[in-house]
Amino acid sequence: MARFTHVEGLSSADVQRLRSTYEPLAQSVRELIDATIRSEVDAADVATAKAHIDAATELLRAEQTDGPFGVRVTSDGERMPWGNPAIGIRNAIAPPLKLVRDEDGVVSTDFRLGAAYEGPPGHVHGGIVAMVLDHVLGEVAASDPETPRFTGTLTIRYLRATPLGDLRAEGRITRTDGIKTFAVGHVCDAQGITAEADGVFILPRWARG
Amino acid sequence: MARFTHVEGLSSADVQRLRSTYEPLAQSVRELIDATIRSEVDAADVATAKAHIDAATELLRAEQTDGPFGVRVTSDGERMPWGNPAIGIRNAIAPPLKLVRDEDGVVSTDFRLGAAYEGPPGHVHGGIVAMVLDHVLGEVAASDPETPRFTGTLTIRYLRATPLGDLRAEGRITRTDGIKTFAVGHVCDAQGITAEADGVFILPRWARG
Repeated sequence: MARFTHVEGLSSADVQRLRSTYEPLAQSVRELIDATIRSEVDAADVATAKAHIDAATELLRAEQTDGPFGVRVTSDGERMPWGNPAIGIRNAIAPPLKLVRDEDGVVSTDFRLGAAYEGPPGHVHGGIVAMVLDHVLGEVAASDPETPRFTGTLTIRYLRATPLGDLRAEGRITRTDGIKTFAVGHVCDAQGITAEADGVFILPRWARG
Repeated sequence: MARFTHVEGLSSADVQRLRSTYEPLAQSVRELIDATIRSEVDAADVATAKAHIDAATELLRAEQTDGPFGVRVTSDGERMPWGNPAIGIRNAIAPPLKLVRDEDGVVSTDFRLGAAYEGPPGHVHGGIVAMVLDHVLGEVAASDPETPRFTGTLTIRYLRATPLGDLRAEGRITRTDGIKTFAVGHVCDAQGITAEADGVFILPRWARG
C-alpha cells in the first residue's frame, strides 16, 4: 500500500512545464470556490456560471488519470505531491501550504485562510486547524522523503478560536525512539498561539529496513 | 466573536430556492476540483478551461458578501452553515458530510472521498480524517444549535491508513461535566475502524447563561 509512483523519463524541465500549466489552473479554481460560497447573484447568472464550469470540467476530463494523482517521483528523485489537500499545487482544496525547513529542523509555513475554511463565524474550522497541524507535524517527522512516517496519534489543544486571515504554523521533533518520532507544533496569528499539537509518527512497516 | 447572523424575513421557501440555486453549482465545482487534479490534457486545453473558470468566477463575484459566509439563521431558526468546509452545501471543499442523529444521540455520516482528499497514495490524508472526526464530535457535543460547543482538546489515534472510497464516521457523548462535554468517535471502512478519536468540547463564554 501507499507506495510512491516513480515516473521514468520525466526531467526537471518537464516538471517545470507541468507546474506552469496546472498551478495557475488550480489557483483559478480556488478563486471559484470562494466565489461559489460568497456569491449573491440570481439563479440565471448562477446557471450561466455553472455551464462555464461544466464546460471546463469536460475539457479537463478528456484525458485524465484513472484514479487519484498519487505521489509521483521523477527520475531525479523530485517529489510531486501535487494532489495533496494540504500542500498540493494542483488541489484547489489546499491553501496550498508552502513548508520551509530551517537549519535546526523546524518546519514552518505562513498562509492565509479565507471563506472556504470558515467554521465558527469569522473563524477557522477546528478540523482545518487539525489538518494543518497534522500535515506540518508529519512533514517534520519525515526527514527522508522516501521513507515517510505516518501519523500514529495526534492531540490538538485549542486555546482560542483561530481567526480567518494571515496565520502561521510551526513544528519540530522533540525525540525519536526507534520507529517512533515525537513532534510538537502550533498555529498562531499576530496575537499569539491559537492551537497546540503533539503527535507520534510511525515508520510504515513496508519502509522498515 | 463567532456569533450567528440572524437573517430576518427569510422564509423556508426562500431557503429552499437558494439551496436549489447554489447546491448544484457547488457540486459542479467539486467535479472541477477532481478534474483539475487528474487531468492530463495539454497546455492549450488547460488555458481554455481556465478561461471558462475565470468567466464563471467573474459572473459570481458581480454581487457577493463582503466577508465569509458566516452561519446564517433564518427567522424560523433554521441554520444555514452553507460555507462550512465539512458540511457546507455551498463549499466545494466539503464532501459535504450529511450528519444523521439517531434517537440515542449517536451522530453518523456515510460519505465518499476521492482524489481531492488523498494524502498517502490511494489513502485519505490524515488531516482530512482529523477534520471529519473534529466535525462529527463537535456536532455530537452541540445538542442545542444556538449554544455551540467549541473543541477544547481532540486526540486522534490512527489505527491504519484510511483508503479513499466509501467511508463512515460516528460519534457519541460519553459524559457532560458542567461546561465540558466528552465525546468519542471513529472513522471506518468496510473492513472496520481506521481511526478513533476522543474530544473535550467547551461551551463558549458568551453562551454561558
